[in-house]
Amino acid sequence: MKHIAIFGFGIVGGGLPDVIESCKEGIKNIVGEEINVKYILDLRDFPDSPYADRVVHDITPIIEDPEIEVVAETMGGAHPAFEFSIAAMEHGISVVTSNKEVVATFGDKLLECARRNNVQYLFEASVGGGIPCLRPFATSLAQEKIISVSGILNGTTNFILSKMKFEGREFADVLSEAQALGYAERDPSADVDGIDAMRKIIILTALATGKLVSADKVYAETIRNITPADIDAASRMGASIKLIGTYKAVGDKMSVYVCPQIVYANKALASVNDVYNAISVTCDITGDVMFYGRGAGRYPTAGAVLADITAILSGAAEAEKEHEFVKADGDVLPFGDVPFTYYIRISGASAADSMESLSRVFDKVEKLDGSAAGTSEFVCSSLSLNDLKSLKENLDGIESVIRVLE
Amino acid sequence: MKHIAIFGFGIVGGGLPDVIESCKEGIKNIVGEEINVKYILDLRDFPDSPYADRVVHDITPIIEDPEIEVVAETMGGAHPAFEFSIAAMEHGISVVTSNKEVVATFGDKLLECARRNNVQYLFEASVGGGIPCLRPFATSLAQEKIISVSGILNGTTNFILSKMKFEGREFADVLSEAQALGYAERDPSADVDGIDAMRKIIILTALATGKLVSADKVYAETIRNITPADIDAASRMGASIKLIGTYKAVGDKMSVYVCPQIVYANKALASVNDVYNAISVTCDITGDVMFYGRGAGRYPTAGAVLADITAILSGAAEAEKEHEFVKADGDVLPFGDVPFTYYIRISGASAADSMESLSRVFDKVEKLDGSAAGTSEFVCSSLSLNDLKSLKENLDGIESVIRVLE
Repeated sequence: MKHIAIFGFGIVGGGLPDVIESCKEGIKNIVGEEINVKYILDLRDFPDSPYADRVVHDITPIIEDPEIEVVAETMGGAHPAFEFSIAAMEHGISVVTSNKEVVATFGDKLLECARRNNVQYLFEASVGGGIPCLRPFATSLAQEKIISVSGILNGTTNFILSKMKFEGREFADVLSEAQALGYAERDPSADVDGIDAMRKIIILTALATGKLVSADKVYAETIRNITPADIDAASRMGASIKLIGTYKAVGDKMSVYVCPQIVYANKALASVNDVYNAISVTCDITGDVMFYGRGAGRYPTAGAVLADITAILSGAAEAEKEHEFVKADGDVLPFGDVPFTYYIRISGASAADSMESLSRVFDKVEKLDGSAAGTSEFVCSSLSLNDLKSLKENLDGIESVIRVLE
Repeated sequence: MKHIAIFGFGIVGGGLPDVIESCKEGIKNIVGEEINVKYILDLRDFPDSPYADRVVHDITPIIEDPEIEVVAETMGGAHPAFEFSIAAMEHGISVVTSNKEVVATFGDKLLECARRNNVQYLFEASVGGGIPCLRPFATSLAQEKIISVSGILNGTTNFILSKMKFEGREFADVLSEAQALGYAERDPSADVDGIDAMRKIIILTALATGKLVSADKVYAETIRNITPADIDAASRMGASIKLIGTYKAVGDKMSVYVCPQIVYANKALASVNDVYNAISVTCDITGDVMFYGRGAGRYPTAGAVLADITAILSGAAEAEKEHEFVKADGDVLPFGDVPFTYYIRISGASAADSMESLSRVFDKVEKLDGSAAGTSEFVCSSLSLNDLKSLKENLDGIESVIRVLE
């Protein structure tokens, strides 16, 4: 019998005992023994839960119990998840987590603490829910150079953008539905403003490069401003609008950003709809590989937490590539310097006038057909954000500017 | 320094030394030492290769060399790959392979031999080229029940079907182009008749269930009969035609088959085009997960071979779930009994007459709009192959029958 503890008995942590129960046989095959949830750490009590007798409110008895081999930290938030994880590892206990905020913020320190104490710190469930997209960075793709990673990393925004496209609805209207369905929080900003996706692309970047960058170095743009007119324009371009998180190697430096982008239908990411996530990785040997699945949900995410637990208890994790993150904010290129192709919609001015103004700053300007009366639309390449800002100051009537995924 | 040998210096085996060279640094991080290709076993000589001095024509000195830890078997074909792999493992050498035929045919015996000799037998490169789609069955998804697997498993046929769709061309015409480009063999039957995909779905089924089924138990249907009229009909249905390999659990039994299917655009597999492959896995906890990438090619496939080599040399493979295949032909349901929805095109008869005839055998019959003059098209559910045969005998003018992926 192998003993574990769960820190935080919420959505994911609360689902973990059920997943352990339903995977009993599989666990025995891999680990050779059963897994017992010996403690559940939470501020609350759960008198109606079949696990009520495991609930404790203090971390000390857990980390001082020599039987505990792994802690599943499913608390969310940077604090006290960080301190609790460090405390567990300093007592010789490995930690697995679904908590993207703590990994994106303190991943360097957490991995260093694991190394120092000769334990494991794994976080498969922190990106892509149940999709096994992080382990390949430590196994199958571990010997390769990762050139870029781009992904649909947030299910809530993908649900909203898919509904806007397929049902022709407004952002605010679909957001209300997502909130009613429990896909979006009452305060939806972590999702819709790209904060959640930003944390995930920080983690993916660190896995690809070993470099952990700070949140304030990563440009993140909201999807609140996307309108049905934008969605319609994308459709006329044979494309969809997706919130994309991107890491790209640029020489020794890198670009890391999250923003809504127009994705042409010939790209695999274009057909990832609803709450699904997809992570596309470009490697120097294997080329493009994409991992796709449900990016959230109680049981898929708890399943990914369990996969990390069994990797530790079977000994597999110890033989996998050991990640080491170092803070490297200086290696992130300023987002303002990154050139993009843009979709631009202008109202008021004549198409001919706009064309002329745009041609002064862009290398290539193409008019898009089918614009609504009184508006002109263009696909223009390529320009950096800094130049775009000056364009906006000098050109009246710009209604919409959206980057195109190349 | 870790020493390996390569059996078969063809496309994949010939690429392996280059991949080892370009992943030198990554290998050192994982394995802790460099990998040296000490022998290359081939019937031919390669006087112009920088590895000419490693080439030998006899297996004996290789398997009797105590320095050799891993053999990469990239010979293709069941024999003598099977005998050579057994000989290596009986001398305490682990074997990795890209050879789907030998795994699909003798996987049970090869894994049993590995167990008996306390070595590893890994075959990531045998399915999906460089896509890391097999290792998750031994790691991240190892504790779950796999309910179904369906995939676009052959790049050549996907290239042909994509070209037929996007360029409106005939099968024979695109096949010639694929042959000229080196995507298809001069004798294309292993690809276009579904044999290659069948071997891969046999391997995936064995990973999902532990049951290895014989090739003659797996229905495989060619794509040679797909016409531009079929592709056009699929487009009018908002779908594409793909060659799909499928495993499905049906109680304690299972269905395993390969056939061209009409795939609606809302399915992730529909947008997998050109030489790309995708493997979609449905698990009881994680739900749907899909792995996508280049399913073939010298370097991606050699990269997957290398990933297996480093997994063995780092010790990771030893801690992963140990696969055990048992022959289980009796568990495959007869394909003739599997019910499907069908697209049916009938020429000559009036639509109304056909509708009546079809309604006698199908529960549900829907007429498809936009048919060419003199033909009627229907989407009918659901019927088994056995009933379909009797339908064909009793209904004149059936031009085309294609299964629809549900």
